[in-house]
Amino acid sequence: MTAEPVELSDDLLSELRGIVEQRLSTSEAIREQHGHDESYHLGHPPGAVVFAHSTEEVSAVVKACAARGVPVIPFGTGTSLEGHVAALHGGVCIDLSQMDAVIQVNAEDMDVTVQPGVRRKQLNEYLRDTGLFFPIDPGADASLGGMTATRASGTNAVRYGAMRENVLALTVVMADGRIIRTARRARKSAAGYDLTRLFVGSEGTLGVITEITLRLYGIPEAVSAAVASFPDLEAAVNTVILTIQSGIPVARVELLDDVQMDAVNRYSDLDYPVQSTLFFEFHGTPSGVEEQSAMVQDIAKEFGAADFQWTTKAEERTKLWQARHDAYYAGLALRPGSKGMATDVCVPLSRLAECIVETRKDIDQSGLIAPIVGHVGDGNFHLVLLMDPDDTDEIARIKALNERMIMRAIAMDGTCTGEHGVGSGKIDFLVAEHGEAVSVMRAMKMALDPDNIMNPGKIVRI
Amino acid sequence: MTAEPVELSDDLLSELRGIVEQRLSTSEAIREQHGHDESYHLGHPPGAVVFAHSTEEVSAVVKACAARGVPVIPFGTGTSLEGHVAALHGGVCIDLSQMDAVIQVNAEDMDVTVQPGVRRKQLNEYLRDTGLFFPIDPGADASLGGMTATRASGTNAVRYGAMRENVLALTVVMADGRIIRTARRARKSAAGYDLTRLFVGSEGTLGVITEITLRLYGIPEAVSAAVASFPDLEAAVNTVILTIQSGIPVARVELLDDVQMDAVNRYSDLDYPVQSTLFFEFHGTPSGVEEQSAMVQDIAKEFGAADFQWTTKAEERTKLWQARHDAYYAGLALRPGSKGMATDVCVPLSRLAECIVETRKDIDQSGLIAPIVGHVGDGNFHLVLLMDPDDTDEIARIKALNERMIMRAIAMDGTCTGEHGVGSGKIDFLVAEHGEAVSVMRAMKMALDPDNIMNPGKIVRI
Repeated sequence: MTAEPVELSDDLLSELRGIVEQRLSTSEAIREQHGHDESYHLGHPPGAVVFAHSTEEVSAVVKACAARGVPVIPFGTGTSLEGHVAALHGGVCIDLSQMDAVIQVNAEDMDVTVQPGVRRKQLNEYLRDTGLFFPIDPGADASLGGMTATRASGTNAVRYGAMRENVLALTVVMADGRIIRTARRARKSAAGYDLTRLFVGSEGTLGVITEITLRLYGIPEAVSAAVASFPDLEAAVNTVILTIQSGIPVARVELLDDVQMDAVNRYSDLDYPVQSTLFFEFHGTPSGVEEQSAMVQDIAKEFGAADFQWTTKAEERTKLWQARHDAYYAGLALRPGSKGMATDVCVPLSRLAECIVETRKDIDQSGLIAPIVGHVGDGNFHLVLLMDPDDTDEIARIKALNERMIMRAIAMDGTCTGEHGVGSGKIDFLVAEHGEAVSVMRAMKMALDPDNIMNPGKIVRI
Repeated sequence: MTAEPVELSDDLLSELRGIVEQRLSTSEAIREQHGHDESYHLGHPPGAVVFAHSTEEVSAVVKACAARGVPVIPFGTGTSLEGHVAALHGGVCIDLSQMDAVIQVNAEDMDVTVQPGVRRKQLNEYLRDTGLFFPIDPGADASLGGMTATRASGTNAVRYGAMRENVLALTVVMADGRIIRTARRARKSAAGYDLTRLFVGSEGTLGVITEITLRLYGIPEAVSAAVASFPDLEAAVNTVILTIQSGIPVARVELLDDVQMDAVNRYSDLDYPVQSTLFFEFHGTPSGVEEQSAMVQDIAKEFGAADFQWTTKAEERTKLWQARHDAYYAGLALRPGSKGMATDVCVPLSRLAECIVETRKDIDQSGLIAPIVGHVGDGNFHLVLLMDPDDTDEIARIKALNERMIMRAIAMDGTCTGEHGVGSGKIDFLVAEHGEAVSVMRAMKMALDPDNIMNPGKIVRI
């Protein structure tokens, strides 16, 4: 493959136009837009962008690129956070956003097959009349192709699992243009290597995902929400540990630290106590959610929760959760004009309080501003490190803090990324975390993409 | 690699003795015992059996074999069903049953790390005082290494998932003797390719699993069980579909058809109606299991269930479930002296009734005897096809019936194996099911085991 971006040949562009007709762009604006995600990572525009309409078109485009050793970068909505879509070595970006059809809903089997450009809100809108929903919610209204490719999760994972648990089967275009189906629609299978899980989280480096079969769930009869403030972080985390050990099937449990709560109060004119706070959501029958909430309240009180606001009313739920939903923008508003760098470590639950407390100390000592929010049921938390994009010294301190936090998490048997993925931003941390196992990943990459044309420069270096 | 079994060289045996000392056997009895599983598949004894005591020993043994291109076959308890442990090309069997230590329980994180020879009953015995348990129950008291390697599941999978969902991390000895750890203990991770899921279900063909970190669950406060008889199979299956759509978190739901119920009645002197029957188990709080049971009873009545026996008492639960537990032996007793061939298709739930009805018709037309039991919440069902091991004509008819059933299941978007795995018995069915995707599996196998020494002749042909 080309180490440096090269101009795409007229010959290739002409072959691509033969496949997608006018749905090819080499305009600077389109290329720029497709070369970066929502993170602070530098953009690298591809040489051209094609807007694919079918698996067959994707296959033909990949074949045309493969014949010339030209990189291929799949693109969904560009909401990734580790530089996943940057065309580090140039090449052709395949924009899948126009492949946005819901192909088939199987209500009795509680599954759905979609094209990769379908967004999660669009899917749930589509499903509304069936009484079913797709629970994975990473915050952004991401495409399901992108969520699959980055192994996304989010607030509901403590109850429903992440993308890993909820993808049943995929159609994938391989690096040579072959089209494979990774599995059928059976709920479980022991038939050979788990190709589905191989592509979930592969970030476009092994193939292009062009169809996704997902598990669905019945919309719960009753939903309730609760908010509780704790004297300290350990109390909040211990409440979560005991809740989960007790088998209470919380649908969501999110932690906001005192800095984040202060930011939320200012941003949305609320008056929550400026303390470590847990937001809960419960799904079930009316009596079930009441029982769950009562049990959690008992546990929270045991750990010193001062108040426990509980509601089943939709408007009040929305209001309770507003603080969580506003967290990112409330954080940014702490310093107008700043950008945020989102971190993503995940540790075993027993180490979470310690990891957050040490990280908070490090933030304060570094003179940085960073609210903390966490999908605390999974041990996953995010800092939003506020940065002045022009202050290179501050950026260096932020990167150093992130590195210390990641090494702390790894030392606690955790991971450098719970849900954002590796992209180009965490390639070195992947080695720190996995050691020798990265050479196994590299062997797999080289076996399935020998010319390294699939989103090169992401996950593993070749 | 060697296409035909060859004598192991004195040189190799001497090196192996240097590693495991007196824990090497070339006795015919030991070799025979390690060359076959519990299935009807022909045994193939390995050239030698080593009883490993540590990851480092396994690594040294694999290195010694790799240097000579000699096959390596891992062995747990030998309870597999598709010829998984047969040494088709000779080689060295690594018996892992003496690596049976529970290494670490992390109660707060609800996980445990075990050596591969730990059996599931032993693990739950060990965990009893912690209030935690490991739910996966494939029937046999298999080793956790074997359960991981075959992607086992069983009766609890509808609620707790299969091995795929419950393995957090593995230590694996690769084909060249390198030792890797596939992940850390965080509940979720987006850090690179999912090596854990790659080895879950790899049947010893990519490496030898030497440590397993598993998810645990709190022992439910209350457990209740129920049995209901239905006018026909569709009514039973529709009850299950509506139960799952309603979000009722049944822990177990097992189907026994009329032939199986008749067998159970005769075997255990019971008097259940000879009809399609569902066995349920509910886990939760006392009021929760009562609510679940009441909801399921309403649904069952809607579909014409004649009676619905429900109990929370441990003895009565045991009695209710006895029929399910006895199913296999009750089936065999229908024809004394026979052996059973266990089949394992799994289809989307919406096709399950149709698949079973057509299969039952086929069984009856073929003049064979075969009770049906099913993990019906997952769409997975088993026939126990009774065979006279000396009647080659009958065996041929049984194999033909199994093939028709598998092709029927695949045509219904199902799989040839829900939980038993491929071994050597389903290599051709894997191709029928996966088509081109098998070439991707083969590329992965060749990348990670280029000399094809890891359990050769299983999953994919090289």
